[in-house]
Amino acid sequence: MECEKQYKSFQAAGLKLDMSRGKPSPAQLALTNGILTCLSEEEFQTESGLDCRNYGCLDGLPEAKAFFAPMLGVKPEDLIVCGNSSLNIMYWAMSLAMTNGICGSKPWAKYDKVKVLCPVPGYDRHFAVSQFLGMELVNVPMQADGPDMDVVEKLVAEDDTVKAIWCVPMYSNPGGVVYSDEVIRRFANLKPKAEDFRIFWDNAYCVHHLTDNPPKQLCLLEEARKVGNADICYMFASTSKITHPGSGVAMMAASEKNMKYLKNALSFSTIGYDKINQLRHLRFFGGKFENLIEHMKKHQALIAPKFRIVVDTLNRELGGLGIAKWTDPKGGYFVSFDQKGCAKRIVQLCKEAGVVLTGAGATFPMGVDPEDENIRISPTFPTEAELQKAMDVFVCSAKLAAVEKTLAE
Amino acid sequence: MECEKQYKSFQAAGLKLDMSRGKPSPAQLALTNGILTCLSEEEFQTESGLDCRNYGCLDGLPEAKAFFAPMLGVKPEDLIVCGNSSLNIMYWAMSLAMTNGICGSKPWAKYDKVKVLCPVPGYDRHFAVSQFLGMELVNVPMQADGPDMDVVEKLVAEDDTVKAIWCVPMYSNPGGVVYSDEVIRRFANLKPKAEDFRIFWDNAYCVHHLTDNPPKQLCLLEEARKVGNADICYMFASTSKITHPGSGVAMMAASEKNMKYLKNALSFSTIGYDKINQLRHLRFFGGKFENLIEHMKKHQALIAPKFRIVVDTLNRELGGLGIAKWTDPKGGYFVSFDQKGCAKRIVQLCKEAGVVLTGAGATFPMGVDPEDENIRISPTFPTEAELQKAMDVFVCSAKLAAVEKTLAE
Repeated sequence: MECEKQYKSFQAAGLKLDMSRGKPSPAQLALTNGILTCLSEEEFQTESGLDCRNYGCLDGLPEAKAFFAPMLGVKPEDLIVCGNSSLNIMYWAMSLAMTNGICGSKPWAKYDKVKVLCPVPGYDRHFAVSQFLGMELVNVPMQADGPDMDVVEKLVAEDDTVKAIWCVPMYSNPGGVVYSDEVIRRFANLKPKAEDFRIFWDNAYCVHHLTDNPPKQLCLLEEARKVGNADICYMFASTSKITHPGSGVAMMAASEKNMKYLKNALSFSTIGYDKINQLRHLRFFGGKFENLIEHMKKHQALIAPKFRIVVDTLNRELGGLGIAKWTDPKGGYFVSFDQKGCAKRIVQLCKEAGVVLTGAGATFPMGVDPEDENIRISPTFPTEAELQKAMDVFVCSAKLAAVEKTLAE
Repeated sequence: MECEKQYKSFQAAGLKLDMSRGKPSPAQLALTNGILTCLSEEEFQTESGLDCRNYGCLDGLPEAKAFFAPMLGVKPEDLIVCGNSSLNIMYWAMSLAMTNGICGSKPWAKYDKVKVLCPVPGYDRHFAVSQFLGMELVNVPMQADGPDMDVVEKLVAEDDTVKAIWCVPMYSNPGGVVYSDEVIRRFANLKPKAEDFRIFWDNAYCVHHLTDNPPKQLCLLEEARKVGNADICYMFASTSKITHPGSGVAMMAASEKNMKYLKNALSFSTIGYDKINQLRHLRFFGGKFENLIEHMKKHQALIAPKFRIVVDTLNRELGGLGIAKWTDPKGGYFVSFDQKGCAKRIVQLCKEAGVVLTGAGATFPMGVDPEDENIRISPTFPTEAELQKAMDVFVCSAKLAAVEKTLAE
């Protein structure tokens, strides 16, 4: 068989490619190297004269709040600017709900059971946080315009042990779904039975476009405010895939009431985040948000061709075979690939030919993909040449898996 | 009355001095300004070639572990190197015990009551973390060589709801107490009834000496290891008062078993700490621990004269009056002052004359000093001239408070 022969030649070639996570490439990282040297030994103050070297300023530099507010579409006072990891503040916010409840509610850890809604496929690290903290994960199907809101509305209205939902509203991980304005309005209007229900809105890819005319999206917090429901959401973002993933700046936005609660809670866990690094970000972008948007176009120029390699190879080699489907995302970091009953086998075949993918099932709670169909492809880290080789291995593995499945049936 | 007249002249002078926290002065911060520029745009890799800009390396750079291990007297593999705040990892570790227990034990949040021992006077932020997380705070008296170990041993042996104790073993906050080797050995040999009891050992001032021949102290983890009790402690430190408080590096040390548990838990709350900032610290100190020790001598040169101003003024103005006592610490950041029944009044008098001190009672759990006697004096931030003025106000206020108290009796 042709593809079997081809697969053996891949194995013989001794490839060694890791595409397991959505990591920026060294060329992308180099776009931001100027940040390493943008402060001089005398530049440690903000414009208002605050000494960023010392303790204090719990919730982030006022200038950093003003700078990052447009990224989440909120007002500076809705924002806190934190350390290098949005996962860290998401963990903190959920762990805080476990130990101390939300805005005075009963601590979630005091319940026998609390549940979190997980749109699937979704981001493994979100699900893992909730699982680790002892929550029960409830799958909610993703649709073309976001989570199935009929299901979400029903579950939160009926069950007061449902305390949260994880969302990546723009270019969802892994499906690349852009939540529609209607879905966002339905989120803004949610009427949960549990008063301490919160939407964990991780806008990780809000400025991470792959096209020149990116979609515009409503701001959940603003929409919720309009209908008197501003406390429904916690919103998160970071510069991890804007500047340097290891040393970026994360942020959180929420209503006035939530912020009052969160800032008080925060005061017990830190004296302040790294303000010097916030100052570096302000200096690197010249304090102008449009410079950040221009910066993202340089990322786009480097990674859009990689997404084309993935999608073109899938179209060319698997198009019309009827064995699989995949996304052609307009932004974000992933191509989502579905081939029923074959995901584990494809990941295994790829691995045995030297291409490490995200584990099959990783995009589902507890790592269990009920249809064993979804694979998350992360094209950004390899070079274009490496990526083409990896995709050649991938489509060959997909065909082999399809043949094996047919023979077994 | 002479001191009443003097006090009025202080009020008229319109002073405005804030001595409420242990903050390094701008001159101290300037010692480290080179760290802002010590990386070039091409220097983002460790010696082993790891790209510090990208994701990964959950528990800190191997080089940073090797560099900081001598600070806590441990082996590099005992250490994780974190973000800018040791308070943050202490909060995380205690919050984690609430949500997930310790090494597989029942989550503390599932108990009706869990207690933490608080040597008093002590660090307000330690006590506040435990109080915020819902723990009951139990006072333990401090002695000249550390906490009263008869009390500690009895409480942990008898009561399995006693889950932790807060310690600052070197130059304790605020008493400046250096725990004796005997006390450390007794900690190492603790036999708690609760198997998930941990000593939270915050070695915040381990290299922060004010004398040329600093005391040497046993390493708790090593002593505990010798007696087969290595899991008894979590140890913490940071560079907050070595480099820049806002943008330093924190670390945590623990036994192999604890570390295995902690690193797994950590993987849910972050992808990694700011490795670029860890690299900056390595470069700034040339990767040599003795350079950090030399650096601390520059801090000593700046702050030891300030401690002299405080202690000399107290000796000169209050010595022999029999109304108060105070410490003459060999390191750390505070002078601890005791005047029975007068602490609140002295702090109030100072405030009304423009000198803000740490609130009276702050050094006790829940802010309640049973004898209303302890005041924490933080001499490092003001200039020497400002500090002298502040101390003049302080001793005058102390005398006034003593007179008022006598008259009221």
